[in-house]
Amino acid sequence: MEKIKAAVIGYGNIGKYVIEALQTAPDFEIAGIVRRNASQIPAEIAQYKVVGSLKELEGVQVALLCTPTRKVEQFATEALSMGINTVDSFDIHTQTVALHRVLDETARRHHAVSIMSAGWDPGTDSIIRALLEACAPKGITYTNFGPGMSMGHTVAVKAVPGVKAALSMTIPTGTGIHRRMVYIELEEGYNFADVARQIKEDDYFAHDETHVMQVENVNDLLDMGHGVHLTRKGVSGKTQNQLFEFNMHINNPALTAQIMVSSARAAMRQQPGCYTLIEIPVADMLYGEREELIKKLV
Amino acid sequence: MEKIKAAVIGYGNIGKYVIEALQTAPDFEIAGIVRRNASQIPAEIAQYKVVGSLKELEGVQVALLCTPTRKVEQFATEALSMGINTVDSFDIHTQTVALHRVLDETARRHHAVSIMSAGWDPGTDSIIRALLEACAPKGITYTNFGPGMSMGHTVAVKAVPGVKAALSMTIPTGTGIHRRMVYIELEEGYNFADVARQIKEDDYFAHDETHVMQVENVNDLLDMGHGVHLTRKGVSGKTQNQLFEFNMHINNPALTAQIMVSSARAAMRQQPGCYTLIEIPVADMLYGEREELIKKLV
Repeated sequence: MEKIKAAVIGYGNIGKYVIEALQTAPDFEIAGIVRRNASQIPAEIAQYKVVGSLKELEGVQVALLCTPTRKVEQFATEALSMGINTVDSFDIHTQTVALHRVLDETARRHHAVSIMSAGWDPGTDSIIRALLEACAPKGITYTNFGPGMSMGHTVAVKAVPGVKAALSMTIPTGTGIHRRMVYIELEEGYNFADVARQIKEDDYFAHDETHVMQVENVNDLLDMGHGVHLTRKGVSGKTQNQLFEFNMHINNPALTAQIMVSSARAAMRQQPGCYTLIEIPVADMLYGEREELIKKLV
Repeated sequence: MEKIKAAVIGYGNIGKYVIEALQTAPDFEIAGIVRRNASQIPAEIAQYKVVGSLKELEGVQVALLCTPTRKVEQFATEALSMGINTVDSFDIHTQTVALHRVLDETARRHHAVSIMSAGWDPGTDSIIRALLEACAPKGITYTNFGPGMSMGHTVAVKAVPGVKAALSMTIPTGTGIHRRMVYIELEEGYNFADVARQIKEDDYFAHDETHVMQVENVNDLLDMGHGVHLTRKGVSGKTQNQLFEFNMHINNPALTAQIMVSSARAAMRQQPGCYTLIEIPVADMLYGEREELIKKLV
Protein backbone atom coordinates (compact mmCIF):
# COMPACT_ATOMS: atom_id res chain seq x y z
CA MET A 1 0.00 0.00 0.00
CA GLU A 2 1.23 3.45 -0.99
CA LYS A 3 1.12 5.55 2.19
CA ILE A 4 -0.06 9.16 2.25
CA LYS A 5 2.90 11.54 2.73
CA ALA A 6 2.00 14.12 5.36
CA ALA A 7 3.84 17.21 6.54
CA VAL A 8 3.14 18.70 9.95
CA ILE A 9 3.36 22.50 10.03
CA GLY A 10 3.99 23.76 13.56
CA TYR A 11 5.11 21.78 16.56
CA GLY A 12 3.06 23.15 19.44
CA ASN A 13 0.38 21.36 21.42
CA ILE A 14 -1.70 20.28 18.41
CA GLY A 15 1.37 19.43 16.32
CA LYS A 16 2.61 16.97 18.94
CA TYR A 17 -0.72 15.16 19.05
CA VAL A 18 -0.99 15.20 15.23
CA ILE A 19 2.32 13.34 15.04
CA GLU A 20 0.98 10.72 17.48
CA ALA A 21 -2.20 10.32 15.41
CA LEU A 22 -0.17 10.01 12.19
CA GLN A 23 2.05 7.39 13.86
CA THR A 24 -0.97 5.25 14.77
CA ALA A 25 -2.70 5.62 11.36
CA PRO A 26 -1.97 2.62 9.09
CA ASP A 27 -2.05 4.64 5.88
CA PHE A 28 0.14 7.66 6.65
CA GLU A 29 3.84 8.42 6.75
CA ILE A 30 5.40 11.58 8.10
CA ALA A 31 7.33 13.35 5.32
CA GLY A 32 8.62 15.95 7.75
CA ILE A 33 7.90 18.66 10.29
CA VAL A 34 8.06 22.36 9.54
CA ARG A 35 8.82 24.73 12.41
CA ARG A 36 10.16 28.24 12.81
CA ASN A 37 13.27 27.13 14.64
CA ALA A 38 14.26 24.06 12.61
CA SER A 39 17.60 23.70 14.36
CA GLN A 40 15.90 22.98 17.69
CA ILE A 41 14.80 19.33 17.43
CA PRO A 42 13.26 17.66 20.51
CA ALA A 43 14.32 14.01 21.02
CA GLU A 44 10.83 12.61 20.29
CA ILE A 45 10.93 13.91 16.70
CA ALA A 46 14.65 13.33 16.04
CA GLN A 47 13.72 10.50 13.65
CA TYR A 48 11.94 12.94 11.30
CA LYS A 49 13.15 15.58 8.89
CA VAL A 50 12.64 18.93 10.64
CA VAL A 51 12.85 21.93 8.34
CA GLY A 52 12.11 25.65 8.29
CA SER A 53 9.92 25.65 5.19
CA LEU A 54 7.54 23.29 3.41
CA LYS A 55 9.61 23.83 0.25
CA GLU A 56 12.45 21.83 1.78
CA LEU A 57 10.34 18.65 1.93
CA GLU A 58 9.76 16.35 -1.04
CA GLY A 59 6.68 14.46 -2.18
CA VAL A 60 4.31 15.94 0.43
CA GLN A 61 0.68 15.19 -0.45
CA VAL A 62 -1.05 16.84 2.49
CA ALA A 63 0.03 19.47 5.01
CA LEU A 64 -1.55 19.51 8.48
CA LEU A 65 -1.54 23.10 9.69
CA CYS A 66 -0.92 23.12 13.45
CA THR A 67 -0.22 26.83 13.57
CA PRO A 68 -2.09 29.55 15.45
CA THR A 69 -5.51 30.00 13.84
CA ARG A 70 -4.67 33.47 12.49
CA LYS A 71 -1.75 32.01 10.51
CA VAL A 72 -3.91 29.40 8.75
CA GLU A 73 -4.65 31.47 5.65
CA GLN A 74 -0.96 32.24 5.08
CA PHE A 75 0.27 28.66 5.48
CA ALA A 76 -2.67 27.14 3.61
CA THR A 77 -2.13 29.49 0.68
CA GLU A 78 1.56 28.58 0.56
CA ALA A 79 0.88 24.83 0.56
CA LEU A 80 -2.06 24.94 -1.86
CA SER A 81 0.01 27.03 -4.28
CA MET A 82 2.49 24.15 -4.36
CA GLY A 83 -0.40 21.77 -5.21
CA ILE A 84 -0.31 20.29 -1.69
CA ASN A 85 -3.61 19.52 0.06
CA THR A 86 -4.17 21.16 3.44
CA VAL A 87 -6.08 20.53 6.65
CA ASP A 88 -6.54 23.09 9.40
CA SER A 89 -8.61 23.58 12.54
CA PHE A 90 -9.39 27.27 11.95
CA ASP A 91 -11.78 28.22 14.74
CA ILE A 92 -12.94 31.81 14.34
CA HIS A 93 -16.61 31.09 13.58
CA THR A 94 -17.35 34.59 12.25
CA GLN A 95 -14.59 34.38 9.62
CA THR A 96 -15.30 30.88 8.31
CA VAL A 97 -17.22 31.88 5.18
CA ALA A 98 -14.58 34.42 4.11
CA LEU A 99 -11.71 31.95 4.55
CA HIS A 100 -13.73 29.26 2.73
CA ARG A 101 -14.01 31.53 -0.31
CA VAL A 102 -10.32 32.42 -0.39
CA LEU A 103 -9.07 28.86 0.07
CA ASP A 104 -11.61 27.44 -2.39
CA GLU A 105 -10.33 29.78 -5.10
CA THR A 106 -6.67 29.00 -4.36
CA ALA A 107 -7.26 25.26 -4.09
CA ARG A 108 -9.12 25.03 -7.40
CA ARG A 109 -6.49 27.08 -9.20
CA HIS A 110 -3.76 24.67 -8.10
CA HIS A 111 -5.83 21.43 -8.34
CA ALA A 112 -5.53 20.86 -4.62
CA VAL A 113 -7.93 20.19 -1.75
CA SER A 114 -8.26 22.22 1.43
CA ILE A 115 -10.30 20.94 4.37
CA MET A 116 -10.83 23.76 6.83
CA SER A 117 -12.13 24.06 10.39
CA ALA A 118 -11.50 20.34 10.86
CA GLY A 119 -11.46 20.22 14.66
CA TRP A 120 -14.29 19.36 17.02
CA ASP A 121 -15.94 22.80 17.09
CA PRO A 122 -15.98 23.91 14.39
CA GLY A 123 -15.66 20.44 12.93
CA THR A 124 -17.34 17.27 14.13
CA ASP A 125 -19.85 19.29 16.20
CA SER A 126 -20.74 21.07 12.94
CA ILE A 127 -21.59 17.68 11.40
CA ILE A 128 -23.80 16.86 14.39
CA ARG A 129 -25.56 20.24 14.17
CA ALA A 130 -26.15 19.76 10.42
CA LEU A 131 -27.33 16.19 10.91
CA LEU A 132 -29.84 17.23 13.58
CA GLU A 133 -31.23 19.89 11.20
CA ALA A 134 -31.71 17.13 8.63
CA CYS A 135 -33.58 15.13 11.31
CA ALA A 136 -35.70 18.02 12.60
CA PRO A 137 -35.56 21.09 10.33
CA LYS A 138 -37.51 23.27 12.80
CA GLY A 139 -36.26 23.77 16.35
CA ILE A 140 -33.37 25.09 18.43
CA THR A 141 -29.89 23.61 18.83
CA TYR A 142 -27.84 24.58 21.89
CA THR A 143 -24.10 23.90 21.95
CA ASN A 144 -22.88 23.89 25.54
CA PHE A 145 -19.10 23.82 25.91
CA GLY A 146 -17.12 22.49 28.80
CA PRO A 147 -16.25 22.11 31.50
CA GLY A 148 -12.85 22.79 30.02
CA MET A 149 -10.09 25.30 29.37
CA SER A 150 -10.79 27.98 26.77
CA MET A 151 -7.59 28.81 24.89
CA GLY A 152 -8.90 32.12 23.52
CA HIS A 153 -10.17 33.37 26.87
CA THR A 154 -6.98 32.30 28.65
CA VAL A 155 -4.88 34.30 26.17
CA ALA A 156 -7.14 37.32 26.72
CA VAL A 157 -6.64 37.14 30.50
CA LYS A 158 -2.87 36.85 30.14
CA ALA A 159 -2.85 40.14 28.19
CA VAL A 160 -4.24 42.06 31.20
CA PRO A 161 -1.49 43.96 33.08
CA GLY A 162 -0.74 42.38 36.45
CA VAL A 163 -1.57 38.84 35.35
CA LYS A 164 1.46 36.56 35.71
CA ALA A 165 -0.29 33.31 34.74
CA ALA A 166 -3.91 32.50 33.92
CA LEU A 167 -6.47 29.84 33.18
CA SER A 168 -10.00 30.53 31.94
CA MET A 169 -12.39 27.61 32.32
CA THR A 170 -15.65 27.44 30.36
CA ILE A 171 -18.53 26.09 32.45
CA PRO A 172 -21.81 25.28 30.68
CA THR A 173 -24.97 26.49 32.42
CA GLY A 174 -27.33 25.25 29.68
CA THR A 175 -29.10 26.73 26.62
CA GLY A 176 -25.72 27.77 25.19
CA ILE A 177 -24.95 30.11 28.10
CA HIS A 178 -21.55 29.79 29.78
CA ARG A 179 -19.93 30.81 33.04
CA ARG A 180 -16.25 31.81 32.97
CA MET A 181 -14.10 30.69 35.88
CA VAL A 182 -10.83 32.62 35.71
CA TYR A 183 -7.82 31.61 37.83
CA ILE A 184 -4.87 33.98 37.95
CA GLU A 185 -1.47 34.42 39.57
CA LEU A 186 -0.94 38.09 40.39
CA GLU A 187 2.25 40.04 39.55
CA GLU A 188 3.76 41.79 42.56
CA GLY A 189 2.65 45.36 43.05
CA TYR A 190 -0.81 44.88 41.52
CA ASN A 191 -4.15 45.05 43.29
CA PHE A 192 -6.29 41.93 42.79
CA ALA A 193 -9.61 43.79 42.76
CA ASP A 194 -8.39 46.15 40.02
CA VAL A 195 -7.05 43.33 37.86
CA ALA A 196 -10.25 41.28 38.34
CA ARG A 197 -12.39 44.25 37.31
CA GLN A 198 -10.28 44.78 34.18
CA ILE A 199 -10.69 41.13 33.20
CA LYS A 200 -14.45 41.30 33.64
CA GLU A 201 -14.61 44.43 31.48
CA ASP A 202 -12.70 42.75 28.62
CA ASP A 203 -14.90 42.04 25.61
CA TYR A 204 -14.17 38.31 25.98
CA PHE A 205 -15.86 38.31 29.41
CA ALA A 206 -18.18 41.34 29.53
CA HIS A 207 -21.22 39.38 28.27
CA ASP A 208 -20.81 36.27 30.45
CA GLU A 209 -21.06 35.53 34.16
CA THR A 210 -17.38 35.73 35.14
CA HIS A 211 -15.65 34.85 38.40
CA VAL A 212 -11.98 35.75 38.90
CA MET A 213 -9.95 33.93 41.54
CA GLN A 214 -6.40 34.40 42.73
CA VAL A 215 -4.35 31.21 43.11
CA GLU A 216 -0.77 30.36 44.10
CA ASN A 217 -0.01 28.19 41.09
CA VAL A 218 -2.12 28.14 37.92
CA ASN A 219 -0.06 25.25 36.53
CA ASP A 220 -1.42 22.93 39.23
CA LEU A 221 -4.94 23.43 37.81
CA LEU A 222 -4.17 22.82 34.14
CA ASP A 223 -5.97 19.90 32.49
CA MET A 224 -6.56 19.56 28.76
CA GLY A 225 -9.87 17.76 29.16
CA HIS A 226 -12.87 19.43 27.58
CA GLY A 227 -16.47 18.62 26.81
CA VAL A 228 -19.58 19.36 24.82
CA HIS A 229 -23.26 18.92 25.60
CA LEU A 230 -25.18 19.62 22.38
CA THR A 231 -28.98 19.44 22.33
CA ARG A 232 -31.75 19.88 19.80
CA LYS A 233 -35.48 19.78 20.36
CA GLY A 234 -37.34 20.11 17.10
CA VAL A 235 -39.95 19.12 14.58
CA SER A 236 -39.69 16.30 12.01
CA GLY A 237 -42.25 17.04 9.32
CA LYS A 238 -45.26 18.05 11.43
CA THR A 239 -44.28 15.99 14.50
CA GLN A 240 -43.19 17.98 17.56
CA ASN A 241 -40.93 17.16 20.49
CA GLN A 242 -38.18 15.22 18.73
CA LEU A 243 -35.30 15.14 21.25
CA PHE A 244 -31.59 14.78 20.43
CA GLU A 245 -28.45 15.07 22.54
CA PHE A 246 -24.71 14.65 21.90
CA ASN A 247 -22.16 14.60 24.70
CA MET A 248 -18.44 14.18 24.86
CA HIS A 249 -15.67 14.34 27.43
CA ILE A 250 -12.30 14.36 25.72
CA ASN A 251 -8.66 15.38 25.72
CA ASN A 252 -8.99 18.53 23.63
CA PRO A 253 -5.74 18.65 21.56
CA ALA A 254 -5.74 14.85 21.10
CA LEU A 255 -9.24 14.93 19.60
CA THR A 256 -8.49 17.95 17.40
CA ALA A 257 -5.35 16.22 16.11
CA GLN A 258 -7.14 12.94 15.37
CA ILE A 259 -9.90 14.73 13.47
CA MET A 260 -7.27 16.61 11.45
CA VAL A 261 -5.58 13.33 10.50
CA SER A 262 -8.92 11.71 9.56
CA SER A 263 -9.66 14.82 7.50
CA ALA A 264 -6.25 14.61 5.79
CA ARG A 265 -7.31 11.15 4.58
CA ALA A 266 -10.58 12.65 3.30
CA ALA A 267 -8.64 15.42 1.53
CA MET A 268 -7.06 12.77 -0.72
CA ARG A 269 -10.55 11.74 -1.86
CA GLN A 270 -12.18 15.07 -2.80
CA GLN A 271 -12.29 17.06 -6.03
CA PRO A 272 -10.19 20.27 -5.98
CA GLY A 273 -11.66 22.98 -3.76
CA CYS A 274 -12.15 23.93 -0.12
CA TYR A 275 -14.48 22.04 2.20
CA THR A 276 -15.73 22.27 5.74
CA LEU A 277 -16.56 18.94 7.41
CA ILE A 278 -20.29 19.23 6.65
CA GLU A 279 -19.37 19.22 2.95
CA ILE A 280 -17.55 15.87 2.84
CA PRO A 281 -18.87 12.30 3.26
CA VAL A 282 -17.97 10.99 6.73
CA ALA A 283 -16.88 7.66 5.21
CA ASP A 284 -14.07 9.49 3.41
CA MET A 285 -12.49 10.21 6.80
CA LEU A 286 -12.09 6.51 7.60
CA TYR A 287 -9.40 3.99 6.78
CA GLY A 288 -10.63 0.87 5.01
CA GLU A 289 -12.48 -0.40 1.99
CA ARG A 290 -15.85 1.20 1.30
CA GLU A 291 -17.84 -2.05 1.48
CA GLU A 292 -16.17 -3.04 4.74
CA LEU A 293 -17.14 0.33 6.22
CA ILE A 294 -20.74 -0.06 5.07
CA LYS A 295 -20.90 -3.57 6.55
CA LYS A 296 -19.44 -2.43 9.87
CA LEU A 297 -21.03 1.00 10.36
CA VAL A 298 -24.23 1.30 8.33
CA MET B 1 -37.46 28.46 -7.41
CA GLU B 2 -37.99 25.21 -9.30
CA LYS B 3 -39.33 22.69 -6.76
CA ILE B 4 -38.21 19.06 -6.63
CA LYS B 5 -40.96 16.75 -7.92
CA ALA B 6 -41.32 13.81 -5.54
CA ALA B 7 -43.40 10.67 -5.78
CA VAL B 8 -44.35 8.72 -2.66
CA ILE B 9 -44.45 4.95 -3.20
CA GLY B 10 -46.62 3.27 -0.57
CA TYR B 11 -49.08 4.88 1.80
CA GLY B 12 -48.58 3.08 5.10
CA ASN B 13 -47.20 4.50 8.32
CA ILE B 14 -43.99 5.90 6.80
CA GLY B 15 -45.74 7.11 3.65
CA LYS B 16 -48.14 9.24 5.68
CA TYR B 17 -45.31 10.93 7.57
CA VAL B 18 -43.27 11.37 4.36
CA ILE B 19 -46.18 13.34 2.88
CA GLU B 20 -46.23 15.58 5.97
CA ALA B 21 -42.47 16.12 5.71
CA LEU B 22 -42.75 16.94 2.00
CA GLN B 23 -45.58 19.39 2.74
CA THR B 24 -43.41 21.28 5.23
CA ALA B 25 -40.26 21.31 3.03
CA PRO B 26 -39.95 24.59 1.10
CA ASP B 27 -38.29 23.01 -1.94
CA PHE B 28 -40.49 19.98 -2.68
CA GLU B 29 -43.77 19.36 -4.44
CA ILE B 30 -45.69 16.09 -4.42
CA ALA B 31 -46.04 14.75 -7.98
CA GLY B 32 -48.24 11.91 -6.80
CA ILE B 33 -48.70 8.89 -4.59
CA VAL B 34 -48.37 5.31 -5.81
CA ARG B 35 -50.31 2.62 -3.96
CA ARG B 36 -51.55 -0.87 -4.68
CA ASN B 37 -55.18 0.10 -4.39
CA ALA B 38 -55.22 3.42 -6.25
CA SER B 39 -58.98 3.69 -6.22
CA GLN B 40 -59.07 3.90 -2.43
CA ILE B 41 -58.10 7.50 -1.67
CA PRO B 42 -58.26 8.72 1.97
CA ALA B 43 -59.53 12.30 2.39
CA GLU B 44 -56.17 13.67 3.57
CA ILE B 45 -54.52 12.88 0.22
CA ALA B 46 -57.52 13.64 -2.01
CA GLN B 47 -55.68 16.74 -3.28
CA TYR B 48 -52.94 14.56 -4.85
CA LYS B 49 -52.79 12.30 -7.86
CA VAL B 50 -53.04 8.73 -6.54
CA VAL B 51 -52.04 6.06 -9.06
CA GLY B 52 -51.23 2.36 -9.21
CA SER B 53 -47.85 2.70 -10.91
CA LEU B 54 -44.98 5.18 -11.03
CA LYS B 55 -45.29 5.13 -14.84
CA GLU B 56 -48.59 7.00 -14.56
CA LEU B 57 -46.91 10.06 -13.03
CA GLU B 58 -45.08 12.72 -15.04
CA GLY B 59 -41.88 14.61 -14.35
CA VAL B 60 -40.98 12.74 -11.17
CA GLN B 61 -37.38 13.47 -10.11
CA VAL B 62 -37.19 11.40 -6.95
CA ALA B 63 -39.25 8.51 -5.60
CA LEU B 64 -39.50 7.96 -1.85
CA LEU B 65 -39.96 4.24 -1.26
CA CYS B 66 -42.27 3.76 1.73
CA THR B 67 -42.82 0.08 1.01
CA PRO B 68 -41.96 -2.92 3.19
CA THR B 69 -38.16 -3.25 3.34
CA ARG B 70 -38.16 -6.48 1.30
CA LYS B 71 -39.86 -4.69 -1.60
CA VAL B 72 -37.21 -1.96 -1.78
CA GLU B 73 -35.03 -3.61 -4.42
CA GLN B 74 -37.96 -4.19 -6.76
CA PHE B 75 -39.37 -0.65 -6.51
CA ALA B 76 -35.93 0.99 -6.56
CA THR B 77 -34.95 -0.94 -9.68
CA GLU B 78 -38.17 0.09 -11.40
CA ALA B 79 -37.70 3.80 -10.59
CA LEU B 80 -33.97 3.91 -11.34
CA SER B 81 -34.58 2.21 -14.70
CA MET B 82 -36.82 5.16 -15.56
CA GLY B 83 -33.97 7.53 -14.62
CA ILE B 84 -35.76 8.54 -11.40
CA ASN B 85 -33.70 8.98 -8.22
CA THR B 86 -34.75 6.89 -5.24
CA VAL B 87 -34.60 7.04 -1.45
CA ASP B 88 -35.40 4.12 0.84
CA SER B 89 -35.04 3.16 4.50
CA PHE B 90 -33.96 -0.45 3.86
CA ASP B 91 -33.12 -1.82 7.30
CA ILE B 92 -31.79 -5.39 7.03
CA HIS B 93 -28.22 -4.69 8.19
CA THR B 94 -26.82 -7.99 6.92
CA GLN B 95 -28.02 -7.35 3.35
CA THR B 96 -26.89 -3.73 3.00
CA VAL B 97 -23.70 -4.39 1.03
CA ALA B 98 -25.44 -6.68 -1.48
CA LEU B 99 -28.25 -4.19 -2.11
CA HIS B 100 -25.71 -1.36 -2.41
CA ARG B 101 -23.95 -3.23 -5.24
CA VAL B 102 -27.14 -3.97 -7.16
CA LEU B 103 -28.59 -0.46 -6.87
CA ASP B 104 -25.24 1.17 -7.65
CA GLU B 105 -24.99 -0.75 -10.91
CA THR B 106 -28.60 0.05 -11.88
CA ALA B 107 -28.33 3.71 -10.87
CA ARG B 108 -25.14 4.29 -12.86
CA ARG B 109 -26.54 2.59 -15.92
CA HIS B 110 -29.53 4.93 -15.92
CA HIS B 111 -27.71 8.07 -14.75
CA ALA B 112 -29.74 8.19 -11.58
CA VAL B 113 -29.01 8.41 -7.86
CA SER B 114 -30.16 5.97 -5.20
CA ILE B 115 -29.80 6.79 -1.50
CA MET B 116 -30.39 3.65 0.53
CA SER B 117 -30.90 2.84 4.21
CA ALA B 118 -31.81 6.49 4.82
CA GLY B 119 -33.63 6.12 8.12
CA TRP B 120 -32.29 6.57 11.62
CA ASP B 121 -30.75 3.10 12.02
CA PRO B 122 -29.39 2.34 9.54
CA GLY B 123 -29.10 6.00 8.57
CA THR B 124 -28.29 8.92 10.81
CA ASP B 125 -26.99 6.56 13.53
CA SER B 126 -24.62 5.20 10.88
CA ILE B 127 -23.25 8.72 10.37
CA ILE B 128 -22.73 9.09 14.13
CA ARG B 129 -20.95 5.71 14.32
CA ALA B 130 -18.70 6.64 11.38
CA LEU B 131 -18.00 10.08 12.83
CA LEU B 132 -17.00 8.64 16.21
CA GLU B 133 -14.58 6.26 14.44
CA ALA B 134 -13.03 9.31 12.77
CA CYS B 135 -12.70 10.89 16.25
CA ALA B 136 -11.34 7.79 18.00
CA PRO B 137 -10.32 5.03 15.55
CA LYS B 138 -9.68 2.50 18.34
CA GLY B 139 -12.43 1.58 20.80
CA ILE B 140 -15.90 0.11 21.08
CA THR B 141 -19.23 1.61 19.99
CA TYR B 142 -22.43 0.34 21.58
CA THR B 143 -25.78 1.11 19.96
CA ASN B 144 -28.55 0.70 22.52
CA PHE B 145 -32.05 0.86 21.08
CA GLY B 146 -35.21 1.87 22.84
CA PRO B 147 -37.24 1.90 24.84
CA GLY B 148 -39.50 1.50 21.86
CA MET B 149 -41.56 -0.82 19.69
CA SER B 150 -39.64 -3.17 17.41
CA MET B 151 -41.52 -3.69 14.16
CA GLY B 152 -39.61 -6.83 13.17
CA HIS B 153 -40.02 -8.54 16.55
CA THR B 154 -43.70 -7.61 16.73
CA VAL B 155 -44.33 -9.22 13.35
CA ALA B 156 -42.47 -12.35 14.51
CA VAL B 157 -44.69 -12.63 17.60
CA LYS B 158 -47.86 -12.18 15.55
CA ALA B 159 -46.84 -15.20 13.45
CA VAL B 160 -46.96 -17.51 16.49
CA PRO B 161 -50.21 -19.58 16.62
CA GLY B 162 -52.50 -18.42 19.39
CA VAL B 163 -51.39 -14.77 19.26
CA LYS B 164 -54.31 -12.49 18.45
CA ALA B 165 -52.43 -9.20 18.79
CA ALA B 166 -48.89 -8.39 19.87
CA LEU B 167 -46.37 -5.71 20.75
CA SER B 168 -42.65 -6.33 21.24
CA MET B 169 -40.83 -3.55 23.07
CA THR B 170 -37.04 -3.23 22.90
CA ILE B 171 -35.52 -2.22 26.25
CA PRO B 172 -31.82 -1.29 26.34
CA THR B 173 -29.82 -2.80 29.20
CA GLY B 174 -26.49 -1.29 28.07
CA THR B 175 -23.45 -2.45 26.02
CA GLY B 176 -25.73 -3.19 23.06
CA ILE B 177 -27.70 -5.85 24.96
CA HIS B 178 -31.49 -5.65 24.88
CA ARG B 179 -34.40 -7.02 26.84
CA ARG B 180 -37.58 -7.89 24.93
CA MET B 181 -40.88 -7.08 26.62
CA VAL B 182 -43.61 -8.90 24.68
CA TYR B 183 -47.29 -8.07 25.25
CA ILE B 184 -49.87 -10.37 23.69
CA GLU B 185 -53.61 -10.93 23.45
CA LEU B 186 -54.31 -14.65 23.46
CA GLU B 187 -56.68 -16.40 21.00
CA GLU B 188 -59.35 -18.45 22.71
CA GLY B 189 -58.47 -22.09 23.23
CA TYR B 190 -54.72 -21.51 23.58
CA ASN B 191 -52.59 -21.98 26.68
CA PHE B 192 -50.58 -18.89 27.62
CA ALA B 193 -47.57 -20.80 28.93
CA ASP B 194 -47.28 -22.78 25.67
CA VAL B 195 -47.55 -19.68 23.49
CA ALA B 196 -45.04 -17.80 25.65
CA ARG B 197 -42.56 -20.67 25.39
CA GLN B 198 -42.94 -20.76 21.62
CA ILE B 199 -42.26 -17.02 21.38
CA LYS B 200 -39.12 -17.34 23.51
CA GLU B 201 -37.85 -20.18 21.29
CA ASP B 202 -38.26 -18.12 18.12
CA ASP B 203 -34.93 -17.09 16.61
CA TYR B 204 -35.89 -13.43 17.05
CA PHE B 205 -36.00 -13.90 20.83
CA ALA B 206 -33.91 -16.97 21.66
CA HIS B 207 -30.72 -14.95 22.24
CA ASP B 208 -32.21 -12.13 24.33
CA GLU B 209 -33.76 -11.87 27.77
CA THR B 210 -37.45 -12.09 26.87
CA HIS B 211 -40.54 -11.56 29.03
CA VAL B 212 -43.96 -12.41 27.63
CA MET B 213 -47.05 -10.89 29.21
CA GLN B 214 -50.74 -11.40 28.53
CA VAL B 215 -52.85 -8.24 28.30
CA GLU B 216 -56.49 -7.43 27.60
CA ASN B 217 -55.81 -4.90 24.85
CA VAL B 218 -52.48 -4.49 23.07
CA ASN B 219 -53.73 -1.42 21.26
CA ASP B 220 -53.90 0.50 24.55
CA LEU B 221 -50.11 0.11 24.90
CA LEU B 222 -49.09 1.20 21.40
CA ASP B 223 -46.83 4.27 21.18
CA MET B 224 -44.59 5.09 18.22
CA GLY B 225 -41.94 6.72 20.36
CA HIS B 226 -38.49 5.17 20.17
CA GLY B 227 -34.98 5.97 21.29
CA VAL B 228 -31.26 5.40 20.93
CA HIS B 229 -28.41 5.63 23.38
CA LEU B 230 -25.18 5.27 21.39
CA THR B 231 -21.82 5.35 23.15
CA ARG B 232 -18.17 5.14 22.18
CA LYS B 233 -15.13 5.06 24.44
CA GLY B 234 -11.95 5.06 22.43
CA VAL B 235 -8.49 6.30 21.58
CA SER B 236 -7.62 9.44 19.60
CA GLY B 237 -4.05 8.96 18.33
CA LYS B 238 -2.36 7.60 21.48
CA THR B 239 -4.74 9.27 23.95
CA GLN B 240 -7.07 6.93 25.84
CA ASN B 241 -10.46 7.45 27.45
CA GLN B 242 -12.14 9.69 24.88
CA LEU B 243 -15.87 9.54 25.72
CA PHE B 244 -18.76 10.11 23.33
CA GLU B 245 -22.50 9.67 23.65
CA PHE B 246 -25.52 10.26 21.40
CA ASN B 247 -29.10 10.05 22.64
CA MET B 248 -32.46 10.57 21.09
CA HIS B 249 -36.10 10.16 22.02
CA ILE B 250 -38.28 10.46 18.94
CA ASN B 251 -41.46 9.56 17.11
CA ASN B 252 -40.08 6.71 15.02
CA PRO B 253 -41.94 6.96 11.67
CA ALA B 254 -41.87 10.79 11.76
CA LEU B 255 -38.07 10.80 12.08
CA THR B 256 -37.60 8.12 9.41
CA ALA B 257 -39.82 10.10 7.05
CA GLN B 258 -38.00 13.39 7.67
CA ILE B 259 -34.61 11.77 7.06
CA MET B 260 -35.92 10.25 3.82
CA VAL B 261 -37.08 13.69 2.62
CA SER B 262 -33.75 15.30 3.59
CA SER B 263 -32.02 12.46 1.72
CA ALA B 264 -34.23 13.00 -1.33
CA ARG B 265 -32.84 16.54 -1.45
CA ALA B 266 -29.30 15.12 -1.22
CA ALA B 267 -30.08 12.68 -4.04
CA MET B 268 -30.50 15.65 -6.40
CA ARG B 269 -26.91 16.71 -5.63
CA GLN B 270 -24.92 13.47 -6.12
CA GLN B 271 -23.25 11.91 -9.14
CA PRO B 272 -25.02 8.79 -10.51
CA GLY B 273 -24.70 5.77 -8.22
CA CYS B 274 -25.94 4.35 -4.95
CA TYR B 275 -25.04 5.85 -1.57
CA THR B 276 -25.61 5.12 2.10
CA LEU B 277 -25.77 8.17 4.36
CA ILE B 278 -22.11 7.86 5.42
CA GLU B 279 -21.18 8.39 1.76
CA ILE B 280 -22.84 11.77 1.23
CA PRO B 281 -22.00 15.20 2.69
CA VAL B 282 -24.46 16.08 5.46
CA ALA B 283 -24.80 19.62 4.05
CA ASP B 284 -26.38 18.13 0.92
CA MET B 285 -29.35 17.02 3.05
CA LEU B 286 -30.19 20.60 4.04
CA TYR B 287 -32.27 23.30 2.39
CA GLY B 288 -30.45 26.57 1.82
CA GLU B 289 -27.43 28.18 0.23
CA ARG B 290 -24.08 26.55 0.99
CA GLU B 291 -22.50 29.70 2.50
CA GLU B 292 -25.55 30.30 4.69
CA LEU B 293 -25.30 26.73 6.00
CA ILE B 294 -21.59 27.15 6.75
CA LYS B 295 -22.26 30.42 8.55
CA LYS B 296 -25.06 28.94 10.63
CA LEU B 297 -23.79 25.41 11.36
CA VAL B 298 -20.00 25.28 11.06
